[in-house]
Order: sequence, then structure tokens, then C-alpha cells
Amino acid sequence: MLFMAQMTVRIPHSLAPAFVEQLKADEKALSQQLQREGKWRHLWRVTGQYANVSIFDVASNDELHTLLTSLPLYPYMDITVTPLAQHGSAIVQN
Amino acid sequence: MLFMAQMTVRIPHSLAPAFVEQLKADEKALSQQLQREGKWRHLWRVTGQYANVSIFDVASNDELHTLLTSLPLYPYMDITVTPLAQHGSAIVQN
Amino acid sequence: MLFMAQMTVRIPHSLAPAFVEQLKADEKALSQQLQREGKWRHLWRVTGQYANVSIFDVASNDELHTLLTSLPLYPYMDITVTPLAQHGSAIVQN
Amino acid sequence: MLFMAQMTVRIPHSLAPAFVEQLKADEKALSQQLQREGKWRHLWRVTGQYANVSIFDVASNDELHTLLTSLPLYPYMDITVTPLAQHGSAIVQN
Amino acid sequence: MLFMAQMTVRIPHSLAPAFVEQLKADEKALSQQLQREGKWRHLWRVTGQYANVSIFDVASNDELHTLLTSLPLYPYMDITVTPLAQHGSAIVQN
Amino acid sequence: MLFMAQMTVRIPHSLAPAFVEQLKADEKALSQQLQREGKWRHLWRVTGQYANVSIFDVASNDELHTLLTSLPLYPYMDITVTPLAQHGSAIVQN
Amino acid sequence: MLFMAQMTVRIPHSLAPAFVEQLKADEKALSQQLQREGKWRHLWRVTGQYANVSIFDVASNDELHTLLTSLPLYPYMDITVTPLAQHGSAIVQN
Amino acid sequence: MLFMAQMTVRIPHSLAPAFVEQLKADEKALSQQLQREGKWRHLWRVTGQYANVSIFDVASNDELHTLLTSLPLYPYMDITVTPLAQHGSAIVQN
Amino acid sequence: MLFMAQMTVRIPHSLAPAFVEQLKADEKALSQQLQREGKWRHLWRVTGQYANVSIFDVASNDELHTLLTSLPLYPYMDITVTPLAQHGSAIVQN
Amino acid sequence: MLFMAQMTVRIPHSLAPAFVEQLKADEKALSQQLQREGKWRHLWRVTGQYANVSIFDVASNDELHTLLTSLPLYPYMDITVTPLAQHGSAIVQN
Repeated sequence: MLFMAQMTVRIPHSLAPAFVEQLKADEKALSQQLQREGKWRHLWRVTGQYANVSIFDVASNDELHTLLTSLPLYPYMDITVTPLAQHGSAIVQN
Repeated sequence: MLFMAQMTVRIPHSLAPAFVEQLKADEKALSQQLQREGKWRHLWRVTGQYANVSIFDVASNDELHTLLTSLPLYPYMDITVTPLAQHGSAIVQN
Repeated sequence: MLFMAQMTVRIPHSLAPAFVEQLKADEKALSQQLQREGKWRHLWRVTGQYANVSIFDVASNDELHTLLTSLPLYPYMDITVTPLAQHGSAIVQN
Repeated sequence: MLFMAQMTVRIPHSLAPAFVEQLKADEKALSQQLQREGKWRHLWRVTGQYANVSIFDVASNDELHTLLTSLPLYPYMDITVTPLAQHGSAIVQN
Repeated sequence: MLFMAQMTVRIPHSLAPAFVEQLKADEKALSQQLQREGKWRHLWRVTGQYANVSIFDVASNDELHTLLTSLPLYPYMDITVTPLAQHGSAIVQN
Repeated sequence: MLFMAQMTVRIPHSLAPAFVEQLKADEKALSQQLQREGKWRHLWRVTGQYANVSIFDVASNDELHTLLTSLPLYPYMDITVTPLAQHGSAIVQN
Repeated sequence: MLFMAQMTVRIPHSLAPAFVEQLKADEKALSQQLQREGKWRHLWRVTGQYANVSIFDVASNDELHTLLTSLPLYPYMDITVTPLAQHGSAIVQN
Repeated sequence: MLFMAQMTVRIPHSLAPAFVEQLKADEKALSQQLQREGKWRHLWRVTGQYANVSIFDVASNDELHTLLTSLPLYPYMDITVTPLAQHGSAIVQN
Repeated sequence: MLFMAQMTVRIPHSLAPAFVEQLKADEKALSQQLQREGKWRHLWRVTGQYANVSIFDVASNDELHTLLTSLPLYPYMDITVTPLAQHGSAIVQN
Repeated sequence: MLFMAQMTVRIPHSLAPAFVEQLKADEKALSQQLQREGKWRHLWRVTGQYANVSIFDVASNDELHTLLTSLPLYPYMDITVTPLAQHGSAIVQN
């Protein structure tokens, strides 16, 4: 079941640079693991912004919530979730 | 080069039903042709709305504009376009 | 799996009253059937508005979209869907 | 009498972690007590956000205000309240 | 129990003038009856707009919804309702 | 002459608690004096928010501005002012 | 006592051109009379829009409301009113 | 002196197609004349929308207003105007 | 050439009171000089807010930008600028 | 391929002045280099704001994202990007 998540990252300027770098590295590692598992199906950068458009493939709302709140950058992100359904004109199944 | 287009369809209730059905059939045919050509890479329905989230893969802004304005439902849609870039954590290239 | 749907009804003043009455009667019948089936778990009126707050319990985004678009008033409603997850402090399971 | 409250939690990053943990524990304890008393009838998590959708069953606006301002996280929440009425198609009474 | 209702009237220009005049006369008569009964406690005009700010004193959300939907201009109004509580600094009780 | 003022209080978490308590006590004292003088005609709490809806009866815009800026909490409030006029259906004069 | 009114004109395309021309002529005549009387102190066009920024000098909210609703174009305008007060740095009195 | 104008065209579906075509042809002719005269310095299409971003070089606000209101599509456009100034880092003068 | 500027002042609570007082005194002095020169033609307070509505009479966008950025409070203000044109019904020239 | 970027700069008041001056000098140098290379085709100041309207000419979304994120002020800017296409009435090619 697919969901679009639009995430905007707002890291406070007061955070220590080393802490931020570690957060980003951990975020990247977990993100790539979830992509390889097929949970995080697509990840695109919004041009000109510290933001992304993501497509998740999960079994339930609960799984998605657990996944998103496990992201290291979660405390610093604004996230909106849009549930996606099968489009009648799509030539592939979701 | 990838772009997200978010389209909301607003067909006036005054249009003749047969005309609307023909528009939708033409839209579906063109949409599926563009999907098969790889231009319209993804097409998802927004749950509960007459709206979609689409990902296009085109060579330029001009190609995207020509494509979108050629859609039969174009006169009845509100469209916003978001240019997408490669995300540093994505495990595949756009 | 739970979703909140917020629906606002906007029936054009140009529709024939008898047609509108039939729409509303059909909407009510289907709504009550879905409530009895447990799919439409809660249905509340927003005070002072021709709008409701609803909670649906469905197996997937696709089931919800099919359900909502089958409503007789669907062409005359603005709907926003919010996917709900289990809250850690809730004393019952969703 | 039912009210929907939509609460978004914004805890400043400058608060001491131990203080925050205590706030959350106190919030959870009070929330569960109010649920058991039937005042806080439903509590759902908004998927992907530190936010909830709640349904309260209270005797008056004053009782609701007193209840909400007694929550330990109240100083850190944005709350909007929507008064709910009986829907004519609902198969149960509020 | 007090509620603020903010009502904006949008009468379509296509309605017959005589019908509109009758609506307004009926609205005025019912409004004044409700004011005399103490249900519609205050009624003020928003300067420069076909809109009002009203304070209602009713026993419940249901009573307010029934009252508002009984107004002759209800089909032509956008209404937002704000539940009011006792303010700790007020020198009178609501 | 009547005006509605909608005030939302946003006290920074960094202020000293004793200072905030003094501000609130001073605000309450001045508010009650103005209510007794008939300048601050109504004061209601917005349910679930640190906000109020107030009705002022003053001789001019200047008097209202002077009054509002004299409030101890003024530096910490967002205020919007709506000038009110006599409503043609009101059974009392403003 | 000064008020800023921001007016946007939205004349339906369905109105008869002769009727619209008469409305505009009547509006202009009344506007100029009110300007000569000193009630409508300033009248500026918003560049690129069928809209204006106006400053009115009236004795009360009621006088302003009566004035604005007497304008021939009033039924076709969206108006927002901002009450203005004396600025402490202004070198002239309002 | 430069101004950005952002124009969105909303042609009612009820207009006769021949009339619309003539409007567009007249708009194009005038637009190109103004471009050749250097008044309409840039004209870009917003990708996916019936809208444009334009840069005008005119001597005054009045000249810009006269120019914009002379456009054949003016009655069917929403226009916002942003006055532009010399940027300190620009390598050319406006 | 006239422009409306709407300025909202947001002075951080962390600034030293003496520094703020000096800023305000400098702002007042410059503002009054510009008023005497006829550049800052009108200056009104928005009732209930730390904000103003101003009318400037300058020769160009560049002159206005230079003027506004020279204000001592500029770093602490949100400013929106609306270019004004001659209104066809105004009895005086801008 | 052209893109409009609208950038608003929000430098925290807590940054050291010397650091800010260096940021601005670096920003200016890079901006001017990109202008000379033809990548940053236009750069205009929004009158009255610490903001600009820019037109970029780049080969792809990725090139634009890389360019924008390389700007020294990037961490302190809100940027929105609008992809531009050839307008049918423009007398020059993009």
C-alpha cells in the first residue's frame, strides 16, 4: 500500500555540527536500508529546498508511522502524508 | 529529468455527460500511451479525491508543458509542478 | 486500519430539488449500511456546517477510495483524508 | 456532548530531556485516566506527525477547557476544537 | 453555554429579488424571536461586509446546530463556530 | 462604538515564572477595572486555547489602541480588531 | 476617525454591459461627492487590479458601514476594513 | 523601472470559442508589439499552467496600470504586481 | 509616484531595552524628517497592532527600496509594498 | 532551460556580524561569477524586502539544485522554484 510523504527538514542552527553530521549519516544509512528492503520505494529531492518527496510501500498506517518516527531526523522534520490509491488509468498495479 | 505534477480535476456539472465520458476516455488513452513511452513514469490516485500525483520523465520544461497542455482534461485541471532532483541518499539514479 | 475523512458538501443551487432529495436519501441508505457493516465506524456532524467528520475502518487505501467514490454525494463533496495510527497512550487498539 | 480536538505537540529542543520524559509520562497517565472515565472517548495518532485527533465527551465548553488546560503538555500544544453534533444519518446517538 | 458564530452571507445574483427579500424578512423575524428568547444573545454587523458576529446561548452543540440550520439564509451562509468558555478574568459569569 | 478584538497570548518559555505571574496578575486587575468601567464589555475564553474574544466599547480607534497597548500582556499577544456596526435585525442598540 | 478600506471589484461576466456602465457611473458620482465632502479622504488604484485602497474619515463604525453599503458596486465588492489610529511618529494629526 | 507581473488566465467555459480565439489573437498581437517596444521585457510561461511570469519596464505605476488594463485578456486574468529594485550583486543595471 | 507599505514590527524580546529605545528614537527622527520632505506622505497606526500603513511618494522603486532599508527598524520589520496608480474616480491627482 | 527562483533571506540576529559580512561577500562573489557565466541570467531585488527574484538558465533540475545549495546564504534562505517554459507569444526564445 502506497503513501506519499513530503518531508521538510529544519535543523536548528544551534545544534553542534558534529551532532548534525552524525544525524545525517544515520539518516542516510537507515534510508538506504529501507530502500533496499522495498519499504521506501522512491526518494526525490525537491529542487532548491532541504526537502524530499518520498513514496513508501507499507502494510498499514501503523507501519508507516513507526517507520517515519524511527528516522534520525524525525524530530527536525515537518511531514505530511498522503495515502495513494490505484489510479484507473495506470498501466501498472501499485 | 523528473517532475512531480499534482493534478486536481474540476469538471463543471454543466458539461454534457457524453462529452465528459469522451474526455475521460481520451485522457486515459493518451495517459497510457505516455506511460508506455516512459514519459509518464508514475500515476497514483489521491485517496478520496478526483486528483492524482504523477511523476514525469522529460527532457525539458518545454516538453513537460507541451505534454500537460495536450491532455484532454487539461482545461479542467489545476496543476502544480515540482521539479525533482537527485537525492543524495537515493540508491538509484533518477 | 483507521482513516479520518472530513467531508464538506456543496450542492449547486441549480440542481433540481427532487434530484437532491433522492441523492440525500441514497447517501443516507448507503451510509447506514456501511455503518452497520463496521466500515464507517463514526459519523459526526460539524456544528453549523453542511459537513461531517467520519472515521472509516478499511483494509487499504484502495478500499477507502472505492468506498468514498461510491457515495451518491461524492461529486458534490470536498474530502480530505487523514491516515490514523495507534496512539501510544490509547487504552484500546484501533 | 462531543468535541473533536486536534492537537499538535511542539516541544522546544531546549527543554531538558528528563523534564520532557516526565511531562510525557504525566500526560500519558492523565490521558489514560480520562479515557477510562469516558471523558476522552477516542485518541488517534496522525500518521507521520507528533499530533493527534481526539474526541471528548463532556458536559460543557467549560469542562472541556478545564480538561485541556490541565494536560501536562498543554503549554506545548496547538489545539483546535470543533464542536460536533448528531448527524442525521448516524445509526447511533452521540 | 456560549458559542460565537461568524456568518458570511453569499446570496447568488441569480436568485429572484422577491425571493431574496422574503428570505431576509423571514431571517429577520426568526432572528428577533431567538434574540427575545435569549438564545441569540448578541448580533453585530461586521463593518463593510455582509457578515455578522453572533453569540449564542444554548444548552448543547445539537441545539446550536438545529438553530443555525433552521435559519432561512442558512443555505447561503458560510458559518464558523467557536465554543466559548468562562474567562478567569471576566467579572460576570457566561 | 463596538469593536471585537481577538487576542492570542504567546508567552516565551524563557520568561521567568515570577515575572509571568506578575504580568498575569496585572493584566487581570486592569482587565477587571476596564470591565467595571464598561470599556471592556465582554471577555470570553476560546475553548482549548490561550486566547480570548473580547468586545470593547470605546469612543474612537485611538482610545481602543491606547487601551490595548496599555495591557501588560500586550507585548506577548497577537491581536486582530474587527469594527462592529449596528445590525439591522438586532433588537438592541449597540 | 480614519479607516482603511481595501475593495476588490468582481463584476459577474453575465451582467448586461449597459447595466454595468450605469453602475460604474453611479459609483463614480457618489465617490466624488463623498470625496468632496471629506468623508472619502483618499482613493488609490492598486496597480494591475480592479481594486482600490481607500481612506475614510467618519464619525463611527456605523457611519462607515452605511456609507460602504450605499455604494452602487457594493454587491460586487469584497471589502476589508482596517481601523487606523494616530501614529506616535506622525507629524500631523489624523 | 522594472516590475514583475504574475498573470493567471481564467477564461469562463461559457464564452464562445470564436470570441476566445479573437481575444487570444489580439492579446498576442499587443503583447508582441509591447515586447518590440521594450515595455514588456520578458514573458515566460509557467510550466503546466495557463499563467505567465512577466517583467515590464515602464516609467511609472500609472503607465503599468494603463498597459495591463489595455490587455484584451485583462478581464479574465488575476494579476499580482511586484516592484523590482536594483540588486546590489547584479552585474547589470535594471 | 505612490506606494503603500504595510510594516509590522517584530522586535526580539532578547534585545537590550536601551538598544531598542535608541532604535525607536532614531526611527522616529528619520520618519519625521522623511515626512517633512514629503517622501513619507502618510503614516497611520493599525489599531491594536505594532504595525503601520504608510504611503510613500518617491521617484522610483529604487528610491523606495533605499529609503525603506535605511530605516533603523528595518531589520525587525516585515514589509509588503503595493504600487498605487491614479484612480479614475479620484478628484485629486496622486 | 529557465527557472525562476524566489529567495527570501532570514539571517538569525544571533549570528556574529563579521560572519554575516563574510557570508554576504562570498554570496556576492559567487553570484557575480554565475551571472558572468550566464547561469544566473537575472537577479532583481524585491522592493522593501530582503528577497530577490532570480532567473536561472541551467541544463537540468540537478544542476539548479547543486547551484542553489552551493550559495553561502543557502542555509538562511527560503527558496521556491518555478520551472519556466517557452511562451507562445514571446518574440525571443528562452
